Amino acid sequence: MSEPARLIGVDWGTSNLRVMRIAEGGRVLDSRSDPRGAGGLSQDAFLPVLQDVAADWLTQDLPVLCSGMAGARGRWREMPYLPCPAGIEDLAAAVASPQDAPGVRLVPGVAVFENGALADVARGEETQVFGLDALEDALVVAPGTHSKWIRTRRGGIDGLRTFLTGELFAAVRKGTILGAGMGDPGGDDDAFARGVGRALNDPAPTAALFSVRVEGLAGRLSTESAADYLSGLLIGAEVAAQADMNDRPVILIGAAPLCRRYAAALAQGGFQNVRVADAASATAQGLWRIREVLSR
Amino acid sequence: MSEPARLIGVDWGTSNLRVMRIAEGGRVLDSRSDPRGAGGLSQDAFLPVLQDVAADWLTQDLPVLCSGMAGARGRWREMPYLPCPAGIEDLAAAVASPQDAPGVRLVPGVAVFENGALADVARGEETQVFGLDALEDALVVAPGTHSKWIRTRRGGIDGLRTFLTGELFAAVRKGTILGAGMGDPGGDDDAFARGVGRALNDPAPTAALFSVRVEGLAGRLSTESAADYLSGLLIGAEVAAQADMNDRPVILIGAAPLCRRYAAALAQGGFQNVRVADAASATAQGLWRIREVLSR
Repeated sequence: MSEPARLIGVDWGTSNLRVMRIAEGGRVLDSRSDPRGAGGLSQDAFLPVLQDVAADWLTQDLPVLCSGMAGARGRWREMPYLPCPAGIEDLAAAVASPQDAPGVRLVPGVAVFENGALADVARGEETQVFGLDALEDALVVAPGTHSKWIRTRRGGIDGLRTFLTGELFAAVRKGTILGAGMGDPGGDDDAFARGVGRALNDPAPTAALFSVRVEGLAGRLSTESAADYLSGLLIGAEVAAQADMNDRPVILIGAAPLCRRYAAALAQGGFQNVRVADAASATAQGLWRIREVLSR
Repeated sequence: MSEPARLIGVDWGTSNLRVMRIAEGGRVLDSRSDPRGAGGLSQDAFLPVLQDVAADWLTQDLPVLCSGMAGARGRWREMPYLPCPAGIEDLAAAVASPQDAPGVRLVPGVAVFENGALADVARGEETQVFGLDALEDALVVAPGTHSKWIRTRRGGIDGLRTFLTGELFAAVRKGTILGAGMGDPGGDDDAFARGVGRALNDPAPTAALFSVRVEGLAGRLSTESAADYLSGLLIGAEVAAQADMNDRPVILIGAAPLCRRYAAALAQGGFQNVRVADAASATAQGLWRIREVLSR
């Protein structure tokens, strides 16, 4: 007989939905994905979409926990950003249900305040962080459209910083002369490393960007390798900005090819203790642990 | 009787052409503009376009000097980048004619080399710099698509740095979530100043960009003012990167509204001696002075 589900976990990103049947301990039994991300849904569309994707799972009288952008402003129900430092108990204490779905509980986001003013935010990554182990004075880096660097302390989230890296890469490639003829990154590790090196040595990213053109003019960078160099510049700018923390262990969560590039850039920036964790497993584990706190 | 022309000056930019009749001393007598910039012309199209715009001026047996992108690779004739430091005599000694137009002489660009490797370039701005007065240990800033910060020394060009500012602003506005609903900058000086302030205090522009979103979430930045804040962030990033030179006088050359914003950002960054010069006059004056060197 198969292991029974104990929790329905929902990870509702801006452009993607994932629903999971989760067993005791946080293991994912089954998972379904759907392209109807929170970014395109109005308030009353969330419940029908969730039922469309997983009505059979929702009838089993299991708790449903949902992290990510379903809790953003103007979406299913606006959830607050909890101020850092924030622990898993703080998250669990703040979950709340959308008006049309009392059986679903949304996880809040986390925020950094500086001098009382909102300075940075994250939604979804907080749950992943609590699904990871060994979080003493670490950095959890979630690369992507908006890369999040999350500092942990005593098992909680101590602070975070967001870089516009992924979106900026796409915008520069599509919208500037640097992108002319540029393909996808991933083919030239050496060009990537040179981009990282430039970023680590040049504190002015908007000037470093022009070097994509100069390297081409000088015959040192082919059109085929330009995407790797640009990727190196932008990921390198993140590493450069966080290099004062390179004595910390880093846990990377995200797509494998991207994590591989971040690992290389982190090594160039002097980070010596870097490991990669599976993002989906971290989300499921984080939701499970929030459920455990809730059922105490 | 009107003053006679002594020089035909041509400023051939990437997206615009300007031809000028220039009198003794560098004064512009007449000027014509055309949208056929060098960026869209093949090698054999330059002479016909120039004749189309100013055939009547070209018959008067006057010298013709042309600065800008007509000398870029793949255009009328590829002109070298002269290494900095470069004086006006170096520029004059390197002028050369396209094969199909022996009466036209193109002005070379200038370049910075670091450890023997090409590190930055400019075309067109070198001529403007030599058209300005009082160039002892100054900074000439030419804002725009690619902003150029040019250092002068002993009347020559000592070095330069290019920032992708204008192009990056357009790409971020068009291609990222930050640009959603964003209008044109220019309406909110306070939001601009806050963007500059953030850039001056945060050495990580790709993280600072995310603050456009956070400021909006926090209710501190309206959609109407977001373009000004973003403009402040990117111009502020330039000023921050050059702040170690804020004891130098600065001459701004460019469009008036843009120069006004740069002047404000420079003041915020501690630059105390800033003046604005007319770009077209500077080009004409620079071409005139090169002609004077050539006729010695």
